[in-house]
Amino acid sequence: MDQRRVLTGDRPTGRLHLGHYVGSIANRVKLQEKYRCSFIIADLHMLTTKPDRDSIDEISENARQMTLDYLSCGIDPQKANVFLQSAIPETYELNLIFENMITVPRLVRTPSLKEMAKNAHLDEMPFGLLGYPVLQAADILLPRAHLVPVGKDNVAHVELTREIAKRFNYLYGEVFPVPDFLVGEVPTLVGTDGQAKMSKSLGNAILLSDDPKTVEKKVRSMYTDPNRISADVPGRVEGNPVFIYHDVFNPNKAEVEDLKERYRQGKVGDVEVKEKLSKAINGFLDPIRERRAEFESRKGYVDEVIYEGTLAHRELAKETMKEVRKAMGINSAWNRISRKVEEVRKSRERVQT
Amino acid sequence: MDQRRVLTGDRPTGRLHLGHYVGSIANRVKLQEKYRCSFIIADLHMLTTKPDRDSIDEISENARQMTLDYLSCGIDPQKANVFLQSAIPETYELNLIFENMITVPRLVRTPSLKEMAKNAHLDEMPFGLLGYPVLQAADILLPRAHLVPVGKDNVAHVELTREIAKRFNYLYGEVFPVPDFLVGEVPTLVGTDGQAKMSKSLGNAILLSDDPKTVEKKVRSMYTDPNRISADVPGRVEGNPVFIYHDVFNPNKAEVEDLKERYRQGKVGDVEVKEKLSKAINGFLDPIRERRAEFESRKGYVDEVIYEGTLAHRELAKETMKEVRKAMGINSAWNRISRKVEEVRKSRERVQT
Repeated sequence: MDQRRVLTGDRPTGRLHLGHYVGSIANRVKLQEKYRCSFIIADLHMLTTKPDRDSIDEISENARQMTLDYLSCGIDPQKANVFLQSAIPETYELNLIFENMITVPRLVRTPSLKEMAKNAHLDEMPFGLLGYPVLQAADILLPRAHLVPVGKDNVAHVELTREIAKRFNYLYGEVFPVPDFLVGEVPTLVGTDGQAKMSKSLGNAILLSDDPKTVEKKVRSMYTDPNRISADVPGRVEGNPVFIYHDVFNPNKAEVEDLKERYRQGKVGDVEVKEKLSKAINGFLDPIRERRAEFESRKGYVDEVIYEGTLAHRELAKETMKEVRKAMGINSAWNRISRKVEEVRKSRERVQT
Repeated sequence: MDQRRVLTGDRPTGRLHLGHYVGSIANRVKLQEKYRCSFIIADLHMLTTKPDRDSIDEISENARQMTLDYLSCGIDPQKANVFLQSAIPETYELNLIFENMITVPRLVRTPSLKEMAKNAHLDEMPFGLLGYPVLQAADILLPRAHLVPVGKDNVAHVELTREIAKRFNYLYGEVFPVPDFLVGEVPTLVGTDGQAKMSKSLGNAILLSDDPKTVEKKVRSMYTDPNRISADVPGRVEGNPVFIYHDVFNPNKAEVEDLKERYRQGKVGDVEVKEKLSKAINGFLDPIRERRAEFESRKGYVDEVIYEGTLAHRELAKETMKEVRKAMGINSAWNRISRKVEEVRKSRERVQT
């Protein structure tokens, strides 16, 4: 097994959907066979846009549901760590150190931050949100990860992590690997509305934990070719979400080809295409649902997975911070002062006895 | 005694000078009689402009020399805490939380940061330097200080601390007092060159630990009225550094008045004015020097002062963070998960036995 470490993860927004599966989870299930993987439940990142008490209170349940989805999809806690970011206090320390390794203009140039700022709790860019890529660098470099799976969206963030690692190593000596991208490993899936990336908040998501009836209902109301007002009008297959989903989730390729052919010729109704899609998606989700039910029935199992994963990750974080402090000399002042005090106290005791 | 807490302090730049005494130390000696005082040795702030290894390595010795000066001037560790910032890990955590309570434009408007950025280690504003007032807010609010002595220079910084405290209290309930200014408590002293505020790096400083000969030498080369080319030319007293110093350090007011009078009339030489000033400054410094020698001779004493002050301050910091975490609910996710694991493990043990 490749001893290189992979760091990736999600904000704890709760149950995952098909977009998560296609975009990252499927890939992680493969990655865990090849590398030492750490999957972060990034709850501190939530504070940058949603620091309100209600959102914070949802973290534990969201983390559980998300981890249940991970496990149901095949992520194996024997092979990979799932851990809770806020339970790794070393994160705070490394974040502060890294904040001095990068300039404001460099961060301002980061794409995607401005988009995120629109949904933030303050009228203008929160300082913590501008520092989002710095905190992310701390997440990635705390376990000294070598590889980061990235989509187009976050190449720029990981580029910053690389710069921070280089700057740190330049100032204090080689402590961090400069992590490489695992590019193109994060495809996106369009939502059921055909308008945007699948997202729970947009209401266009099919959850991995949806029951068969819910899946049927969501598929029935899916967006297709809007120009096709009746079944005998030739339709467009390309970019049509029902066919995108068929391509991804329907293992019966002959059926998919037949449907596409007839759709193009105006010889199949949306109802048939969608019924077959529901069946395919439910067929895909059934084993995931079964495992979910099984893990849910084991009392406290999910909590233990997060708990053990976090403890293991913390050991890694402690080791790294030991190296960081040694390289920087940042705790040498306190060490020298403490040592001196111990020394003097011991010699005083010796005099008294 | 007023139970309100005061937080103020210095970066560990080493031995202090007369400007520090006039500007802050004299005031602190008074404050410790009235309030519960914490004096921070702000070594983490050094990372914002001087994160290089050499500067970090100087921290412990600089902290010792600075604390020796504090003690020599009359700061009493029985009354006030002197503590080392980097040994208070709660600082990192509160800093990250506070970063989400303030916007980038608000920080960009802070005066003095641009000036500081000129001397920083990066070509453009380091992100950590823009966050300097946030870290300062963490310093002030970690002991839940009620009062902050401020000069004109840093009113704006403390104003930010007030905003952050209000924002936090608004989001999570009343945890922090909104600290008040102790305005006008930080006068400045011009350097021996008469050109700028006294500062070690400008080479215009008389150190509290300078020996009498060094003081004489520095006073002899002091800037006076440049238009006065010989002793019989009438001179300007106002704004003249030798007379500013006479006013501050010479307890013999009659002598000072006499010198001023004769200076204005062109009836006294610079040599006499300066000799009398040297004598006055040395008279002022003698008891400070004596105490310095006394404290230096007690082996490990200064280290113990910092050590004990830091431990005491850490207790305060821990209490505050307990309140912060409770108010935010930020560690409840980890607590719930850990509790659940404990519960399940106990019930398993019960089944087995």
